[in-house]
Amino acid sequence: MSLQIIASIREFGGYLNRYSHDSASCHCEMIFSIYLPPQAQNEKVPALYWLSGLTCTDDNARSKAGAQRYAAEHGIALIFPDTSPRGEDVADAERYDLGQGASFYVNATQPPWAGHYQMYDYVSRELPALLEENLPLLAGVKSVSGHSMGGHGALICALKNPSGYRSVSAFAPICNPVNGEWGKTCFTAYLGDDRTTWNAYDATALVEAGARVSDILIDQGTADEFYDEKQLLPESLKAACDKAGQAITLRMQEDYDHSYHFIASFIGEHIAYHARALKS
Amino acid sequence: MSLQIIASIREFGGYLNRYSHDSASCHCEMIFSIYLPPQAQNEKVPALYWLSGLTCTDDNARSKAGAQRYAAEHGIALIFPDTSPRGEDVADAERYDLGQGASFYVNATQPPWAGHYQMYDYVSRELPALLEENLPLLAGVKSVSGHSMGGHGALICALKNPSGYRSVSAFAPICNPVNGEWGKTCFTAYLGDDRTTWNAYDATALVEAGARVSDILIDQGTADEFYDEKQLLPESLKAACDKAGQAITLRMQEDYDHSYHFIASFIGEHIAYHARALKS
Repeated sequence: MSLQIIASIREFGGYLNRYSHDSASCHCEMIFSIYLPPQAQNEKVPALYWLSGLTCTDDNARSKAGAQRYAAEHGIALIFPDTSPRGEDVADAERYDLGQGASFYVNATQPPWAGHYQMYDYVSRELPALLEENLPLLAGVKSVSGHSMGGHGALICALKNPSGYRSVSAFAPICNPVNGEWGKTCFTAYLGDDRTTWNAYDATALVEAGARVSDILIDQGTADEFYDEKQLLPESLKAACDKAGQAITLRMQEDYDHSYHFIASFIGEHIAYHARALKS
Repeated sequence: MSLQIIASIREFGGYLNRYSHDSASCHCEMIFSIYLPPQAQNEKVPALYWLSGLTCTDDNARSKAGAQRYAAEHGIALIFPDTSPRGEDVADAERYDLGQGASFYVNATQPPWAGHYQMYDYVSRELPALLEENLPLLAGVKSVSGHSMGGHGALICALKNPSGYRSVSAFAPICNPVNGEWGKTCFTAYLGDDRTTWNAYDATALVEAGARVSDILIDQGTADEFYDEKQLLPESLKAACDKAGQAITLRMQEDYDHSYHFIASFIGEHIAYHARALKS
């Protein structure tokens, strides 16, 4: 598994690089971006994985979230994986919320998805191992965050691997996909009709089943159309955490929407939150 | 001339709004965005106009430059005009560097452009008057910056109106368009074959002809492909300024390219620079 560099852009004294590689998990070529802060030129640095939402590639967050400035200040690398396997040989759907760009970060078990859609293994195991071997990242010192479908991805990665991540946060995450239309559509396609298999990828169900992390930070805008549509259901996760004694900070941000303008407004606080955990 | 609000997005405690209006200069509907910082909810604030480059709309800089964070800190409004008139009735060209998205911020005199392409008047006169009448902006307290073709626009707006702008800066501006391929193509189309008319919209020629501003700040990346192609020619402007005794700070930024990642890296310093002038 070797990394091929596609592009390198200087930013805030560091470098925003894009790589491709053959993925053993997804059985296809995968593309990701990584921001290496200035500190990485002289030493290994901690890593924050950012999982993006529906329809995104590795480019959206790196171009719109305004995160690199804070990563440079704190000396943290940012990793931007793609949101699904891609290519002519990879199954897809006409709708935007299923298939390419919409993996939901699960390991699919159902045809035609199972062959390539192994994104849970890819983002939580294969990619960190690959990067820690080949780039100036501290081994095992990583945290995870994300937006919407990627916020869901961040939550399940941390809850399923409590020793694997130092901290977890999310922006407008899909907190209880088994009870939202997006989640039900995708989990049926990727995991089949047996809903008991869905709970392994549902943050609320994971907490109910006993999964624990040190803390959870979530920002949710009150003017978010998908919050209104009950796709996100942060109250379900909050209730499960409160019942289980799981620490969670759910901040309802008045009048903020679902866009990257919302993310940009609070990403600095999230990166500072992760920096405290990554450097403790 | 009334403003129609199209969208309003909360960001960094303020609001990023998009408006449309009928332009008397361009004889068509124009769209722009404005970021009103939190301070504008209680008082009138200074304004920084941002002129974007080839192919951009009002959306590129507002989504990618990371400027709103600094505008909120300093209490400055950011105005993002479109880069040209648009619409089915507006002349256009197949190439990306002429016509819609490529006005060069001049008042065109030649058919088929002259009817709508009056962007110099639009950005330097009509739009500021409209906004100061309708939005919480301090009358006449404005500065200007921009990128590439928009950096050219910022320089000529300030040099042609030394009392109209408190300060001017630019990222990778086209400093001497009469001697670059982009500029020669567009000035021929918009202004005709008589090159003596071109000098009124060329920053280097304006300085040579006696135009003066208090100071000029320019950042230019050394890995910028358009710098290599001699489209930008910052050395020509620097030489003219040095000869004329015009203050200029030209910072060659090692290994930075022409992208918004370059802009994001230094926009905080530019906004701090403008804030000092706008609040003095």
